[in-house]
Amino acid sequence: MKMKAKVVALSALMATSFMMTSAMASDKTEPRNEVYKDKYKLQYETWHATSESDEIVDVLAEDPNLVVLWAGYGFAKDYNKARGHHYTVTDLRNTLRTGAPTGPDDGPMPMACWSCKSPDVPRMIEEQGEDGYFKGKWSKGGAEIVNSLGCSDCHEKGSPKLRISRPYVDRALEAIDKPFDKASRKDKQSMVCGQCHVEYYFEKTEDRKGYVKFPWDNGTTVEEMEVYYDAINFSDWTHAISKTPMLKAQHPGYETWMLGMHGKNNVSCTDCHMPRVAKANGKGKFTDHKVGNPFDRFDETCATCHEGKTKEFMMEVTHENQKNVTEIKLRAETQLVHAHFEAGAAWEAGATEAEMKPILLDIRHSQWRWDYATASHGVAAHAPAEALRILGGAVDKAANARIQLAQLLAAKGVKMPIAIPDISTKEKAQEALGMDMDKMNADKQRFLKELAPKWDAEAEKREATY
Amino acid sequence: MKMKAKVVALSALMATSFMMTSAMASDKTEPRNEVYKDKYKLQYETWHATSESDEIVDVLAEDPNLVVLWAGYGFAKDYNKARGHHYTVTDLRNTLRTGAPTGPDDGPMPMACWSCKSPDVPRMIEEQGEDGYFKGKWSKGGAEIVNSLGCSDCHEKGSPKLRISRPYVDRALEAIDKPFDKASRKDKQSMVCGQCHVEYYFEKTEDRKGYVKFPWDNGTTVEEMEVYYDAINFSDWTHAISKTPMLKAQHPGYETWMLGMHGKNNVSCTDCHMPRVAKANGKGKFTDHKVGNPFDRFDETCATCHEGKTKEFMMEVTHENQKNVTEIKLRAETQLVHAHFEAGAAWEAGATEAEMKPILLDIRHSQWRWDYATASHGVAAHAPAEALRILGGAVDKAANARIQLAQLLAAKGVKMPIAIPDISTKEKAQEALGMDMDKMNADKQRFLKELAPKWDAEAEKREATY
Repeated sequence: MKMKAKVVALSALMATSFMMTSAMASDKTEPRNEVYKDKYKLQYETWHATSESDEIVDVLAEDPNLVVLWAGYGFAKDYNKARGHHYTVTDLRNTLRTGAPTGPDDGPMPMACWSCKSPDVPRMIEEQGEDGYFKGKWSKGGAEIVNSLGCSDCHEKGSPKLRISRPYVDRALEAIDKPFDKASRKDKQSMVCGQCHVEYYFEKTEDRKGYVKFPWDNGTTVEEMEVYYDAINFSDWTHAISKTPMLKAQHPGYETWMLGMHGKNNVSCTDCHMPRVAKANGKGKFTDHKVGNPFDRFDETCATCHEGKTKEFMMEVTHENQKNVTEIKLRAETQLVHAHFEAGAAWEAGATEAEMKPILLDIRHSQWRWDYATASHGVAAHAPAEALRILGGAVDKAANARIQLAQLLAAKGVKMPIAIPDISTKEKAQEALGMDMDKMNADKQRFLKELAPKWDAEAEKREATY
Repeated sequence: MKMKAKVVALSALMATSFMMTSAMASDKTEPRNEVYKDKYKLQYETWHATSESDEIVDVLAEDPNLVVLWAGYGFAKDYNKARGHHYTVTDLRNTLRTGAPTGPDDGPMPMACWSCKSPDVPRMIEEQGEDGYFKGKWSKGGAEIVNSLGCSDCHEKGSPKLRISRPYVDRALEAIDKPFDKASRKDKQSMVCGQCHVEYYFEKTEDRKGYVKFPWDNGTTVEEMEVYYDAINFSDWTHAISKTPMLKAQHPGYETWMLGMHGKNNVSCTDCHMPRVAKANGKGKFTDHKVGNPFDRFDETCATCHEGKTKEFMMEVTHENQKNVTEIKLRAETQLVHAHFEAGAAWEAGATEAEMKPILLDIRHSQWRWDYATASHGVAAHAPAEALRILGGAVDKAANARIQLAQLLAAKGVKMPIAIPDISTKEKAQEALGMDMDKMNADKQRFLKELAPKWDAEAEKREATY
């Protein structure tokens, strides 16, 4: 018993010394979440409990259409449902999208890919400036970025005070006339989540090459962002089949939340996903940091506004919205899959750039809408009508592309309909696209066995000096 | 002063005598709304105030696409927004859809067209049976059906008790396991509105030829009704351009209300459109029978549930839903207009019935969805997400028709795209369809001048015997 008490005391002492020492990683950012485990015990414990959200759900296996829609882009390699905040770094290392780098200058992805994953990101930006941080390949940051998304991503150092930890987020909020410093506490509770749960892209201009930017200069609706991207002639990648200059929507959760009933009524992200809950000892409340499904804590979330409604009723409404959004999402996907293959056939038949340009623009705009409406987590709960509106537009624009394609293919003497390969499973779809998944998986395993442990060892050494 | 008191007393006496006499039009139905003007003064006065909703809004002029979509059907001739209940008979006589009959066996429409327009309908059914009532042309009922929609359509004779006044409505409610007699008062308050504000059609079977029926045998969703109509091979008309066997959706307000948030929360039609309001004398409340826009009586309608929300906020939400629904509605219309003309071109190029069949089925299903989603009054307020879901399906199915048409037209050697005539105004669209509007309007004027007054005279004579 004495031993145990001693350990606890030592741990408390260490925590205190971490908080007080000036030998910190950065003046503003303590990246190590464990440092706060005693001072903010309940918050830390609930944050740590996001590790319980550990199930791996393979979205490409659930819906192999996605392999075709993202052909030529990393997401066609693998795409799993987001797990708890605890896994941000792990899952980014594990995904085939980040490839299998062998050294700091190797691999398919840039540094910007880390940006939403860890409090080491603001630390690095503070230490090296944005220019230093964003420079180079993803692999460059491997030994630097090791702490999963946590305390310092949203809080000031050693304090519960909310903060925006990335300068590019400050710029985005300025662009939509919602500067963080002037925002209400309620707004801030959503804005901190909106640091990551948004649409963003990596800049290609010379002075900010590789910087993260939110395409909000004209506004945050799907059309306003489209105008933005079109005006700067931006594309994330060129589609492998249709050669369309594509946009990949990320996860515009903050943007779609604003347009839905919760956003309009200023119900913040935290109201539903990080509610204030009673302490086990009955003395007061604390903010539950186990970000998750509001239905898991119905009484502290939904029920605080939806008086008199049962959990079953609210879940049924949500499931119906999900079902409806999924229906139109699948209609859009079917049209888009065909459009990509029909465009591919048109190229093969000798279609010209000029002939294809309006068609590819429709495909680009259609898939952008489809992706925007569905990539966002929980859109069916946040803004079902907006999702359905956007998806209706996606179906329409894909249809317009296909109608033009049918006319063009006819003019080129191509027999229709254009056959689609067997894409009934993820594996078949990837095979149809000529993707060597065995090699990718083997390479990834090598990376995880050889380079990743070196990153951890290097990081441990560095953090020991803090 | 004495004189005046005498008149009032006489009027009261007359009303009493009307209520007590056995020389009524029917044992169950008093069709003359005026009979109740003293006994149910406030209800009568507010019912009468529906006459203030007198603006004629020409929907075909607002959206000339409709002329093409309804080509070959009465709605392409004229279609105005519904006015107050006061105008049900007037507007049915005035519309070009009912033509210009010269006698009881003349004209384009059947008796069933009266069914939602007047308490004379239940009276006639009670007097003649459904078989007697539904038999013959619309013109047959002209001298019988003269009282506009009112008291006896929803109430038992001389009583505030709610009733279903048409036997075909009773059958429809039985079909969906919601018999009126066993319904709660709240449900009844919606069911009486659902006597008319629903999808219905006119039967073609030998034993019930011309009867009104709600196509609810499989359920009340757009898909369930479609299955019903397809199974009985029903069509309202054959499209003049595409030769599609079409379905005309009427106004499935009751069905869509059930699927929206108000229906799911058992907020009845009357809660929003006929609220209980304070009497002018401050003594108690009465049900306002001026059926109209809930925003006109915000405090007694929306605000009773949406606590703390301003009228401006609620209107903005509604307008945004309307805008979103309109966006996808117009996308569907554009696809459908083209599909009809492209199908017309395919027929001209010698397409066979077999080639056209799957295409016309897609057009039928698309336009059915478009019509179902938008013909219902207030769908953007009642069930915006359901409307958007259905319209997304309409766009998709029209697109599928057009993609097949492009392939078929190519196979037939037809040059694409298929030109669309100038349909930028109602007049131009009607001209493009070869509709002789001058003749139709002149005929209607003749009917209104010659036959309609005879109906009124005959009805007056008949009612004098009550």
